[in-house]
Formats: sequence, C-alpha cells, structure tokens
Amino acid sequence: MDDPARNAELALLLEVAGTPKPGNVDRRRDFDDLRFEHFLAGAVGSRDGLDLAANGTAVGPAFERAVEGMAAHGENTQFGALLLLVPLVRAARTDLSQPVVESVVEGTTVADAAAFYRAFEHVDVFVADPPDELEPLDVRRGADAVPELETRGLTLLDVMDRSVPGDDVAREWVRGFDRSFTAAERLAAADGTLSDRTAAVFLTLLAERPDTLVATRHSEAIAAEVTDRAADLEERDALESDPGAIDAFADDLVDRGVNPGTTADLTAAGLFIALEHETVEI
Amino acid sequence: MDDPARNAELALLLEVAGTPKPGNVDRRRDFDDLRFEHFLAGAVGSRDGLDLAANGTAVGPAFERAVEGMAAHGENTQFGALLLLVPLVRAARTDLSQPVVESVVEGTTVADAAAFYRAFEHVDVFVADPPDELEPLDVRRGADAVPELETRGLTLLDVMDRSVPGDDVAREWVRGFDRSFTAAERLAAADGTLSDRTAAVFLTLLAERPDTLVATRHSEAIAAEVTDRAADLEERDALESDPGAIDAFADDLVDRGVNPGTTADLTAAGLFIALEHETVEI
Repeated sequence: MDDPARNAELALLLEVAGTPKPGNVDRRRDFDDLRFEHFLAGAVGSRDGLDLAANGTAVGPAFERAVEGMAAHGENTQFGALLLLVPLVRAARTDLSQPVVESVVEGTTVADAAAFYRAFEHVDVFVADPPDELEPLDVRRGADAVPELETRGLTLLDVMDRSVPGDDVAREWVRGFDRSFTAAERLAAADGTLSDRTAAVFLTLLAERPDTLVATRHSEAIAAEVTDRAADLEERDALESDPGAIDAFADDLVDRGVNPGTTADLTAAGLFIALEHETVEI
Repeated sequence: MDDPARNAELALLLEVAGTPKPGNVDRRRDFDDLRFEHFLAGAVGSRDGLDLAANGTAVGPAFERAVEGMAAHGENTQFGALLLLVPLVRAARTDLSQPVVESVVEGTTVADAAAFYRAFEHVDVFVADPPDELEPLDVRRGADAVPELETRGLTLLDVMDRSVPGDDVAREWVRGFDRSFTAAERLAAADGTLSDRTAAVFLTLLAERPDTLVATRHSEAIAAEVTDRAADLEERDALESDPGAIDAFADDLVDRGVNPGTTADLTAAGLFIALEHETVEI
C-alpha cells in the first residue's frame, strides 16, 4: 500500500485533471482568475500537512498546516477537499473504513476546532453569514473565535455538526463519510481511464444532491437547476452518447461562474479512498 | 523562499501541464500508453527523493529514491528531469547558481554513480547500445555494473561525462546546467500565463538543438527535422500568430510517436530555477 499522504496529494491532482467536470477547473477549462496551475500548486503545497496527518498529528493542526501550504500562492483551491482528506488520511493509519474515520472525527477536540478556525486566517473561504446566535463563532473571525469555542467546549466534530445543513463537506463528517465511500465504489465500477471515471463519478454526485457551494454563493434555485441538468445528462448517459451536451453544460457553468466545488471535494475524497484500497489504477 | 523539494515537484507538474509542447504529453494531449495521469503520479512519487536531496542526502541515493517513487505506477515519466532536478535541489540548499551546482556535481562520488546505476533497476529507460569498450558499464546492467564502476573509480560526474555527446541531460552536468539556467531566464522574460511561457520556452529549446531522446529512439535525421520545424515555427512566432500550425506539428509528432523528452526535461529544470528565484508566478 502506498503512503496515504502521497495518495491524498495524488487524489487532489487527479480530481482537477479529470475532465469534463462541468463548472470546475479541469484539464480543459480554467476560470479567468483561477487556473489549473493554481490547483497544481495547491496540491503540492498541502503535502506537508497531509504528511503530518499520515504521521499521527491531530486532525486540526494537520488541516491548518495543509491549508496554509495550499494557500501559499494566494488562492483557495482545495479547502473543502482537505477537510475531507485529513481525517481520511488519519484513518488510513489504522484502516481506511467508515467506522475508523468515524472514530477519528469523534476523537477531535476543542484544540482541533481552534486549529480549524485558525486555518481561515490563511485563506479566503466563501461562507454564508451565520445566524445571530452563532455570530461569535463565525469562521471568518479566525483565531478571535477561539475563546468562544473554549467557553462552549466545542470540538471540531461539534463545529461540523453545526454546519449541517448547508455544507455537504461538514455533512460527511456527521454521516460517516458516506458519499465519499460511495464515490470510491463508483470510481472502481466505472469504465475507462481514471480521468473518464472521475468525470463520470463527479456527474453522479452532482446529479444526486445540489452542490452546497453553489447554493451558498449563488442560490438554492441555481444549485437545484444545476443538479437537475446533471441528472438529465446522467440519465441520458450523455458522457457516452452526447459529449457535446456535457461540454455545453460545462461551458455554460464556467461562463456564469457557477462552480460546484463541494462536488469536486467529494470526488477527491472518493479518489483517495479508491487509490488507498487499490480499486483503481493510474 | 519556498522549500526546494516542493518547487521541484511543482516544476514537474507545471512542465507536463504546459501546452502546446509538440510531441509531449501535455494538458491537452496523451499518448496511447502514456497519459497525463502517469506524469501526475510520477511527480508525486518523486517527492520523497527530492525531499532527501533538499535535506542534504547525496545526489546518487536521492536520485535513486526519486526514480523509485516516480516509477511506482510502472511508467518512466521523468527520469531525465529528475537527473537535472536532484543536483539543482541540492545546490538550492546553499545557493541556486551555476557555480554552486557545478560544485555539487563535481562533488559526486563512485557511490553516487552506483546509486545511479541501481536507479535503472526501478524503471525501463530507453538508451542506445554503448560502444564495445563501455559494454561493462551499460546502464541496463543496473547494479551488476557497480564492481566495474568501482574498479575504474568513476564518479557520477565521470559517468555523465562519458554520456556526452548523445545525451543532452548529461551535457548539462558537464556544462554547468547552462541551458537549464537559460530556460529559466526565458521563462521570466516570456509573456502570458505560466502555461503559455512553458510552451514558448519549450519551443525555443527544441528549435535550438536536436532532442537527444528523439535521436536515440528514432534517428538523428528525425531529430534534426523536428528541430528545423520548431525553428521555423519559432521564427514565424507561430505560438502567437498561427496556433493552428503548432497544433498540427504537435498532432503529427504524437501520431508518429516522436517525443522530444530531453527538451521537456530541460524545461522542467528551467521551471524549477525560475520558481526558486521567484522570477515567475503561478
């Protein structure tokens, strides 16, 4: 078995390379202000934090370091993906299974939550305004929110629990990484090169639930529209039968700046699990 | 300044992403049996060896480890690039200048040469038959050639010296990495995104000297033809004025299986130097 940190970094790279992934930067598409090279640099930069997780450092500090390295060139490329990958890498030290990753997130502490908040100081993450009673815990406060975390005794899992609904990365934390493991199974079962499989599985995930980053940045209506179109394309098996329709969908989303980033995060998590379980090959 | 091992890995990724690079796998082109994903995995896999070089391990053992990791998925993607990057990373511990990298390669030993030969056991590298008197030192003998190396007292620089002419990676070792540093200067002076700059500099290098991998795998005549066509395209400023002509050239080389890999190796070395000197931005 490969080193989990190496596979986690490779998962980030394979995710961004997989094409077509409508609305996301991929091997064939860039946004004006966010290009493929930013994702390459983000993946390489996150490695030190992933190494910490693989070597047994607690989830929060490993995540903070991964985010700091990812953001060294100034862009937020893989924040959500790292929030999935760090506990998965930590679990892979023992056994990369749903029960083990559940025990990893259940073992997180207030110190992990504090490190998670500090991670926001390294990078500009798009988040919604919290409800009034949670304003003292707005992640955009960064380290300033730490005393409040300590007063309330909130672990990182508690913080994630409060972010659901509305954040499907956080939802993975409280649901045993269910969609991440499902994505890995689908990657193994799909046909074609790993790039083809990545694109196919991304589409299944997008068709299944509205992307929470799109809902936050744009609206729930737009997120629902994107999911409906993905479901229609998936039903028609458009990746096989009508690649032009997928490309048109991808171009339209890029033109509108609609970026289903949460779905990409889940895809990266699935790639990591499939690489670790050796159910896919490069 | 960034960690040199991180920048070396990033240079490998930026090199393969840069497009169009006629005849090479790039962001838009694959060969049937060698795909973009293989290069991503090769770059990630080489990191442990690059870390060793950045931490002061001798050039030979660091190179062997980098090659072993690069080849973990079975393909030889970046052997030549690593043979340039490892001494450059080692030099970057002190100062990434031509005199320092010259002193690094002059400091190599017979043990470094032995590790270089062992690296061939991890991967299938295309090399020409040596002349009869050098048959005992055929790199394809791997570790079996080590006693002969020891008898003759050959350092890794001596081995490189015997590989010139015919191998423009080895030529860098005996000429102070001249073209690598020139490539870095050209990257800094070029226009556009880093992908555009990479493509432009690749073309200047290809136009300047016949690619030695093409000469070895195909013939000197084909290598000369490729260089003449690259020079013609460069003279006409085709990347700007006639991108279709570059694409046609790229498609033709891929169809014929003509892969100017040495030129790609030099491009990766130039990217590393430019990243370390912070003369280019992501």
